[in-house]
Amino acid sequence: MLRGIDPILSPDLLHALAAMGHGDEIVIADANFPGTSMGRLLIRADGVTASAMLRAVLSLMPLDTFVDDPAVTMQVVGDPDAVPEAVRDFQAIVNEVADAPATLAGIERHAFYDRAKAAFAVIQTGETRLYGNIILKKGVIGP
Amino acid sequence: MLRGIDPILSPDLLHALAAMGHGDEIVIADANFPGTSMGRLLIRADGVTASAMLRAVLSLMPLDTFVDDPAVTMQVVGDPDAVPEAVRDFQAIVNEVADAPATLAGIERHAFYDRAKAAFAVIQTGETRLYGNIILKKGVIGP
Amino acid sequence: MLRGIDPILSPDLLHALAAMGHGDEIVIADANFPGTSMGRLLIRADGVTASAMLRAVLSLMPLDTFVDDPAVTMQVVGDPDAVPEAVRDFQAIVNEVADAPATLAGIERHAFYDRAKAAFAVIQTGETRLYGNIILKKGVIGP
Amino acid sequence: MLRGIDPILSPDLLHALAAMGHGDEIVIADANFPGTSMGRLLIRADGVTASAMLRAVLSLMPLDTFVDDPAVTMQVVGDPDAVPEAVRDFQAIVNEVADAPATLAGIERHAFYDRAKAAFAVIQTGETRLYGNIILKKGVIGP
Amino acid sequence: MLRGIDPILSPDLLHALAAMGHGDEIVIADANFPGTSMGRLLIRADGVTASAMLRAVLSLMPLDTFVDDPAVTMQVVGDPDAVPEAVRDFQAIVNEVADAPATLAGIERHAFYDRAKAAFAVIQTGETRLYGNIILKKGVIGP
Amino acid sequence: MLRGIDPILSPDLLHALAAMGHGDEIVIADANFPGTSMGRLLIRADGVTASAMLRAVLSLMPLDTFVDDPAVTMQVVGDPDAVPEAVRDFQAIVNEVADAPATLAGIERHAFYDRAKAAFAVIQTGETRLYGNIILKKGVIGP
Amino acid sequence: MLRGIDPILSPDLLHALAAMGHGDEIVIADANFPGTSMGRLLIRADGVTASAMLRAVLSLMPLDTFVDDPAVTMQVVGDPDAVPEAVRDFQAIVNEVADAPATLAGIERHAFYDRAKAAFAVIQTGETRLYGNIILKKGVIGP
Amino acid sequence: MLRGIDPILSPDLLHALAAMGHGDEIVIADANFPGTSMGRLLIRADGVTASAMLRAVLSLMPLDTFVDDPAVTMQVVGDPDAVPEAVRDFQAIVNEVADAPATLAGIERHAFYDRAKAAFAVIQTGETRLYGNIILKKGVIGP
Amino acid sequence: MLRGIDPILSPDLLHALAAMGHGDEIVIADANFPGTSMGRLLIRADGVTASAMLRAVLSLMPLDTFVDDPAVTMQVVGDPDAVPEAVRDFQAIVNEVADAPATLAGIERHAFYDRAKAAFAVIQTGETRLYGNIILKKGVIGP
Amino acid sequence: MLRGIDPILSPDLLHALAAMGHGDEIVIADANFPGTSMGRLLIRADGVTASAMLRAVLSLMPLDTFVDDPAVTMQVVGDPDAVPEAVRDFQAIVNEVADAPATLAGIERHAFYDRAKAAFAVIQTGETRLYGNIILKKGVIGP
Repeated sequence: MLRGIDPILSPDLLHALAAMGHGDEIVIADANFPGTSMGRLLIRADGVTASAMLRAVLSLMPLDTFVDDPAVTMQVVGDPDAVPEAVRDFQAIVNEVADAPATLAGIERHAFYDRAKAAFAVIQTGETRLYGNIILKKGVIGP
Repeated sequence: MLRGIDPILSPDLLHALAAMGHGDEIVIADANFPGTSMGRLLIRADGVTASAMLRAVLSLMPLDTFVDDPAVTMQVVGDPDAVPEAVRDFQAIVNEVADAPATLAGIERHAFYDRAKAAFAVIQTGETRLYGNIILKKGVIGP
Repeated sequence: MLRGIDPILSPDLLHALAAMGHGDEIVIADANFPGTSMGRLLIRADGVTASAMLRAVLSLMPLDTFVDDPAVTMQVVGDPDAVPEAVRDFQAIVNEVADAPATLAGIERHAFYDRAKAAFAVIQTGETRLYGNIILKKGVIGP
Repeated sequence: MLRGIDPILSPDLLHALAAMGHGDEIVIADANFPGTSMGRLLIRADGVTASAMLRAVLSLMPLDTFVDDPAVTMQVVGDPDAVPEAVRDFQAIVNEVADAPATLAGIERHAFYDRAKAAFAVIQTGETRLYGNIILKKGVIGP
Repeated sequence: MLRGIDPILSPDLLHALAAMGHGDEIVIADANFPGTSMGRLLIRADGVTASAMLRAVLSLMPLDTFVDDPAVTMQVVGDPDAVPEAVRDFQAIVNEVADAPATLAGIERHAFYDRAKAAFAVIQTGETRLYGNIILKKGVIGP
Repeated sequence: MLRGIDPILSPDLLHALAAMGHGDEIVIADANFPGTSMGRLLIRADGVTASAMLRAVLSLMPLDTFVDDPAVTMQVVGDPDAVPEAVRDFQAIVNEVADAPATLAGIERHAFYDRAKAAFAVIQTGETRLYGNIILKKGVIGP
Repeated sequence: MLRGIDPILSPDLLHALAAMGHGDEIVIADANFPGTSMGRLLIRADGVTASAMLRAVLSLMPLDTFVDDPAVTMQVVGDPDAVPEAVRDFQAIVNEVADAPATLAGIERHAFYDRAKAAFAVIQTGETRLYGNIILKKGVIGP
Repeated sequence: MLRGIDPILSPDLLHALAAMGHGDEIVIADANFPGTSMGRLLIRADGVTASAMLRAVLSLMPLDTFVDDPAVTMQVVGDPDAVPEAVRDFQAIVNEVADAPATLAGIERHAFYDRAKAAFAVIQTGETRLYGNIILKKGVIGP
Repeated sequence: MLRGIDPILSPDLLHALAAMGHGDEIVIADANFPGTSMGRLLIRADGVTASAMLRAVLSLMPLDTFVDDPAVTMQVVGDPDAVPEAVRDFQAIVNEVADAPATLAGIERHAFYDRAKAAFAVIQTGETRLYGNIILKKGVIGP
Repeated sequence: MLRGIDPILSPDLLHALAAMGHGDEIVIADANFPGTSMGRLLIRADGVTASAMLRAVLSLMPLDTFVDDPAVTMQVVGDPDAVPEAVRDFQAIVNEVADAPATLAGIERHAFYDRAKAAFAVIQTGETRLYGNIILKKGVIGP
């Protein structure tokens, strides 16, 4: 445990967040997500909700302001306009914690998979609610 | 996620529990425990309480009936007879979940450290209550 | 050995089953299958029949309900409509153990090989009956 | 699979048996044995009985004739003269298959552990009968 | 050394032969063959002739009966119809030892190289006769 | 870079600080310290002063309150009572930044080496002032 | 520390500079640069400015005289002709320290990324000024 | 040191030369050559001239007689017909030491690089003369 | 294959012989020797006799002239004065090939084992004659 | 190659010299020295004389002024007062190049070996003169 740092952030996760640079992306995935086969770097957080993880990650990581959609979620299969409960939570947490405002954008399931495969890391949480997945793009901290 | 298995048990932890044999010990440690320097095998579970972890581990692992004390906790420094809240929880969970009855036995802090160093694995939980540590000795499953 | 878990599931296999996510596939292969050269991850289970392995795997792993054919077998070379004894066994076990109904679908030998190469893991059993191979796609466990 | 070789012998096990030399020892252990923590080299054979494994190993490996006890088993705790069912099977298999006659000798549980820790390898079988453990010392094949 | 197994088969080679499955290929190469740069898995057998190695490999490994040419050799550069002394030996050994009849088929040097690069393993023998190379395709052992 | 975290803390150093537990020690060493040969885990920070590093480390890491001397420095060889400039700086930074008050204690050069060898990690800074070395013992963060 | 060598050059960086040959490129990157995901070899120098690093690198490494632009920087996004403060510093240091004259050339942000991905190494400094990135191509040292 | 073997051949280099087969190529490169980034296997020989290395390598390695140009050098950039001093030395050493006659052929700089990248190994010598690079193709040793 | 080097010396063995220095020892062991468990570095030479290996090793390696017994063999158990056929061969080969005269000295079996465990390497030959083991101590090559 | 650095210093050697700290020792050994078995870290420099290497190392590395004998050589066996030619060279080079004056001290052969085993690294040169070995202790560079 460290002073002022959310204790659900493991040493491996702190390392990844600090090693990421401008434009790198990280996936917060739910418990059913195929994180091992898709993640270039997999960080497990079984037993932690995606919401709690999002809050912890955004407390340290700036969002990218060079792009339109620095935070994207997975659309419900067959109902792309639906807003699952987990996604509603995510938007509220972004509004509350992020260093810059961002409106979540939904993308199709397999487009989400392709982007996850190219991401810097995947955090596999224990989130049991379906569609509890979000991709965040890291921004810049000025001088 | 798997059918009928507590989802806070990560793949690495399931592997360790299955690989352990008769007499091997596992430590469920709190967030302040020096698990990296002491554990021969360290399994992190940041963000999970020691109580939830104990319940999950005992749902799968039998306790050793060949010894008197298959489950031991760390005594409070300077007050060996005190029963911290976490330990009270542990006893209730053992009573409820374990395959065999067991009364928790307290041992001195550095004796606890020595035994942890020889254990099969240490699970570093996110338990923030002090003295939230317990060592369990694996038993036998009959034919 | 663990409480309530089929003891033919090795620690490595438990790890793989738990690490797999929605849409990942696992191959249960017979003793003649080229598992080492084709499997991205090979888990050996010499001396265990494919039938016993299928029963053990399905006791823990949900089948995918997002696709039409979550379980496929290899067609007999030169006689695609034949139903080998092992495959007949597989269907009976799926009917009995799986969390969701599924009718086995046969695919051509080299199509089976291509899919096996992309699978999460191959379990090389000691099944000596020919055509004792099956691919399973993992499903989702709801909240 | 190979011509004339028992198919329960995995590639790793064949490698170990061939790499062993005069005086090296191998442990065939039951499903409750702490093989991971004690074995310098662990070879898993979940789902295979210790009896079938003993038969397979002795079909390839000569027993040492330079010592009195080339095959030893673990005494029942608290009843050193008891002969468990598994051990009775072992003696019958040695009589039938080994290249040299040998009478099994029992040693105390912790003495068995110490010898297992120094052995070349431990084979962790799925033997569910208690005391299904045996240590074999490899002999010489003449010119 | 093991009972009934040709002692020129090293532990690594036994491992490879047992790990190979239906359709996998192995190359027995002469001392001048570029085995390190071409072999996905290289097994050295310096000091052993290709003929002795072929005899040992075929004593354990079945040949594939699903294809026309389960055993191929390298044609002499500039004289594709020539039959080098080593190849003549190979045919005699196949006739004597293999589990199924097979007529050796010659292929052009660089076609041989391409096939060797895709093989499961290359055994680099100490064969000093030129063109002492052969590729074998593993077959099936029935129930 | 992360929000609110001193940017001189590298990903590896953040990882180590988070992985340390109660009682683990870390060494901040100067540029002449034999950190590679003495450190169980070496983290380089060439070009950073020991003072800046001490300030950054203490901003995240609690000091141990279970012991008398949670922070120790190396005595000048031949003049144990001298207070080098770097050590004077260290005391001021501890006073300003640490979560608990601590008076630096000097120990003899080779005693310092022995303790450094047992520490969790050594940070090799670019501090060019002699005797710019300090050992810190990590404390506990309460619930 | 070594005689006559700038102490901010770590052992890993000295190794890389010496291992580079004619035409190899090295990137000096600022603190926001995605060095871990882009660098084939990443060398961290947290806490060091890009200017100090450039001075140290050029004190040892010759610039390539076979090409027109042996040193390139990243253009400001949306304002390619701007000259950021860091770049102005870089030109002054090149003028002062390099073994051969060179005028810095700006390239577009993603072209810079592509070239960084192909470089021999990326040095991730703690430079907090934006656009504090430069690529250097190593030259030849004559006999 | 070994009897009758040139002592400038290191153990790693002896290993590579012996592991190479018919048609494999090795590069003897000068001190400015980008051997680390281009060599699939890099063997350093700092402090040794390319001429001395060529003499040592040819004392053990046969040249390929199946191709026209078993030994090639790099043409001077902008003056392809020039014969640098190092190349003149190389031809004299080939004439004196090689097992088969060979006339050195020059190829363009980047063609040389492409071939070096595909070679079995690159020996990075300390040759300070420019254009001190040569590629050798290994031949066959007859029975 | 290399010019003038016995082709039974594999690349790994050439590497070891060249890497050994004054006073280092190498064991040439027969097929029954426990080389894997005793050798710090094991080099297999299945299918090669110990006699042929001794001849090849001595063709390159000088014997130590600083000690009385640079070459020792294993005494027959129970008959220390016997001279097995393999040992008789060894003496003849030493007389013929070694760079310095040496009379083989026999030592007791377990003393031989202890010395083998400390040796630089063990060469496991396919020698099927019993007591076909010898230890050689490397000497110096003068300027 | 780097500006102003002796080109016989390889990247690995530069790394070691920079990583060493106050009191660490490095061995410059001749071609017959058992460097692989004795060196904790071995750096080969075949083909380079010990004298040239000593000159290059001392050009970068300060000698320790806290001890009486920062540079020691090996006494001639049986003639401890002899001064071999190589040692005479060493003293001259130390006098010329070192940052601090030092008189070489001879120690007995096996004492030299013990100290070499504890050293930071051993540089195995191609020095063919006997007794061409020297141990150097690194000193401090002041602020």
